[in-house]
Amino acid sequence: MSERYTAPEIIALKRDRKVLNDDQIDWVVDAYTRGLVADEQMSALAMAILLNGMERHEISRWTDAMIRSGERMNWSMLDRPTVDKHSTGGVGDKITLPLVPLVASCGAAVPQLSGRGLGHTGGTLDKLESIPGWRASLSNEEMLKVIQETGGVICAAGTGLAPADKKLYALRDVTATVEAIPLIASSIMSKKIAEGTGSLVLDVKTGSGAFMSDPAKARELATVMVEIGKSAGVNIKALITAMDVPLGLTAGNALEVRESVEVLAGGGPEDVVELTVLLAREMLQLAGISGIDPADNLKNGKAMDHWRRMIKAQGGDPDAALPVAKEKLTINAEQSGTLTRMDALKVGVAAWRLGAGRSKQGEQLQLGAGIEIHAKPGQSITKGAPIFTLHTDKPELFERAEESLVGAVEYDSNYQRLPLVLEQIG
Amino acid sequence: MSERYTAPEIIALKRDRKVLNDDQIDWVVDAYTRGLVADEQMSALAMAILLNGMERHEISRWTDAMIRSGERMNWSMLDRPTVDKHSTGGVGDKITLPLVPLVASCGAAVPQLSGRGLGHTGGTLDKLESIPGWRASLSNEEMLKVIQETGGVICAAGTGLAPADKKLYALRDVTATVEAIPLIASSIMSKKIAEGTGSLVLDVKTGSGAFMSDPAKARELATVMVEIGKSAGVNIKALITAMDVPLGLTAGNALEVRESVEVLAGGGPEDVVELTVLLAREMLQLAGISGIDPADNLKNGKAMDHWRRMIKAQGGDPDAALPVAKEKLTINAEQSGTLTRMDALKVGVAAWRLGAGRSKQGEQLQLGAGIEIHAKPGQSITKGAPIFTLHTDKPELFERAEESLVGAVEYDSNYQRLPLVLEQIG
Repeated sequence: MSERYTAPEIIALKRDRKVLNDDQIDWVVDAYTRGLVADEQMSALAMAILLNGMERHEISRWTDAMIRSGERMNWSMLDRPTVDKHSTGGVGDKITLPLVPLVASCGAAVPQLSGRGLGHTGGTLDKLESIPGWRASLSNEEMLKVIQETGGVICAAGTGLAPADKKLYALRDVTATVEAIPLIASSIMSKKIAEGTGSLVLDVKTGSGAFMSDPAKARELATVMVEIGKSAGVNIKALITAMDVPLGLTAGNALEVRESVEVLAGGGPEDVVELTVLLAREMLQLAGISGIDPADNLKNGKAMDHWRRMIKAQGGDPDAALPVAKEKLTINAEQSGTLTRMDALKVGVAAWRLGAGRSKQGEQLQLGAGIEIHAKPGQSITKGAPIFTLHTDKPELFERAEESLVGAVEYDSNYQRLPLVLEQIG
Repeated sequence: MSERYTAPEIIALKRDRKVLNDDQIDWVVDAYTRGLVADEQMSALAMAILLNGMERHEISRWTDAMIRSGERMNWSMLDRPTVDKHSTGGVGDKITLPLVPLVASCGAAVPQLSGRGLGHTGGTLDKLESIPGWRASLSNEEMLKVIQETGGVICAAGTGLAPADKKLYALRDVTATVEAIPLIASSIMSKKIAEGTGSLVLDVKTGSGAFMSDPAKARELATVMVEIGKSAGVNIKALITAMDVPLGLTAGNALEVRESVEVLAGGGPEDVVELTVLLAREMLQLAGISGIDPADNLKNGKAMDHWRRMIKAQGGDPDAALPVAKEKLTINAEQSGTLTRMDALKVGVAAWRLGAGRSKQGEQLQLGAGIEIHAKPGQSITKGAPIFTLHTDKPELFERAEESLVGAVEYDSNYQRLPLVLEQIG
């Protein structure tokens, strides 16, 4: 198999805007995974894909080749339908935390393989690791046990799942080739399809704090992913949702766990509750579960019950105190008026600079660091009232975090917030 | 210096069609040479440069940064002006062999640093290595000694000359990023400027057997190189010359040396003589040498005398028998008529497949292998008369060489040959 092609000839095809055939895609993904195609060859190909694009059937085949580079999980032994959600990530996006136990409490099985954060958007595993004792890495047997006992599991993808994607993702990160829709779509979908979920809801974010800040690009990414999912036999739907303003009132790992627990207790910020329930309804509909309103299970404690069992099953103590940052700094409103804008990216960068996010893979986080938000767009505020509280263990980090918040809020402007859901695809 | 930028931010600029500033170019070339920018990062940048281009001043600065990565030779101790020629390479292009001793015999000093062949075009050093005893690698002191004794030297570029280019060229070769005009122009010009020549004539080939088969691209490459040379203070001129038909009557290492010696002896094929004399006149004019016609020095033995001294000075025996292939196969005309076309690329590929060229760097060549041409376009031929004789040590190679010659010649067609010189630039 390895002698069918050479890497330079495959790279040259994409460089010259040609369409790669199935056999060429299979060869290059397999050869890269096995080290026969070198990193410097794959990065040149990735840049050619980024700049010259791929047709839909090329992206589907590329995804399929990445799935076939490893194992594909199978949940047919479960007595419930499987359904999962993937979000492209945003500032304060802690939705997975309340959503997985909520959907599990409604009768679906949710095998959620999550990632870690890089840059200004947080990672679900990082957030959960602020719970003392909680373990992200599970064997396949442990995963099955947790999902059978609690209906849901949130853990790290094992090394056997889409190893081609793991290798390629690390390469793209250092070669400025992350922002290619074919590569983003195939990376996400290869992991989700290999994870073996029967249904999948995609939450594709758009707005300043999103990876795809341009709505047209977000729509394109969503459309491509829905097509890949359909051709792989997954029940799939995508929502394009707003990320112009941070979600909820916190950004930072332990801070977001605390807010998620409030939502599971029937309270919490309105936007987080609304998006959680909305996504839960979509997931249940795709999974064929009717006659139950997830909003009820936030109020009646059933979702909280599933959360506590899930955390305990992975070694965590749901009653333990969460990490708290050593230092706080409050930033107050500079004028009175109606808050009309709060830039998600600026807030995300500030939280990152306070120690909540990483600059490079493997970097240690400050689990208590981040930002509390005291007022959101639409609210009236009086000059001198608190808008943000910054949390960090290292007070020397306040200055650069404050810098990134310059211009983050506007008063009495004509700025129109994005609606929570901009579009549904699939 | 190494901390000023990161590789991903430089790659992202070019990916997004931005212009790199001088400082960014200096940083990335230096950091790559020192191993701080990894191969997989530079190959992504090379692909972005290939697809998104570079402005003229970026190319000049990139060239300058590659020159500054190593030493720059200095010939001010010579009592003659220095002048060199560079050809972008073609099938049967042995012009350097008669040209260097010819120009030396007219009173200029010619410090010619040459390369090896890859693919269907041969390399000057490979050709000369078919002369028993001849050595391509010289120290700077040996180079100076040869040029002082004989007026010319043809040898391999030392490792101290433009090391950034050496590293980048090897990378481009395996990542399908060779065909980028900014990278081709800066690669050629960095070596020629570092070589320290005062004047330079560029022979940019176009037509089927040339690297730049499209005349518009050849013109662009020539224009860019002339600008780089001028801004570095080199007297420079470019000729765009024909490579639709092989040059001369041979393609292959020892075969081409034999033909070059015929030219130095006052004979040889008309097109090789014409181009040699034409380039010699351009070189002498740039070097400010007048009152001598190089055509005379081919007839009167002075060029041959310089050739013999040059070969001997590098350990070669100009009287030794050259390697001869063990097997021959003659291909005859399939019809009578006027030969109107002979495809240079097909002939070059056939010679390569017979063992005259390499598929990858470092591969051993058959020095006696190649093709003899018995009739050229413009000549009348009778059915059954010989057109080509194929030479190789391995008769099993004949079949694929013959395949590549299918359709290589046409009779009585309307095909118009390119003129030998299409354009002069600078």
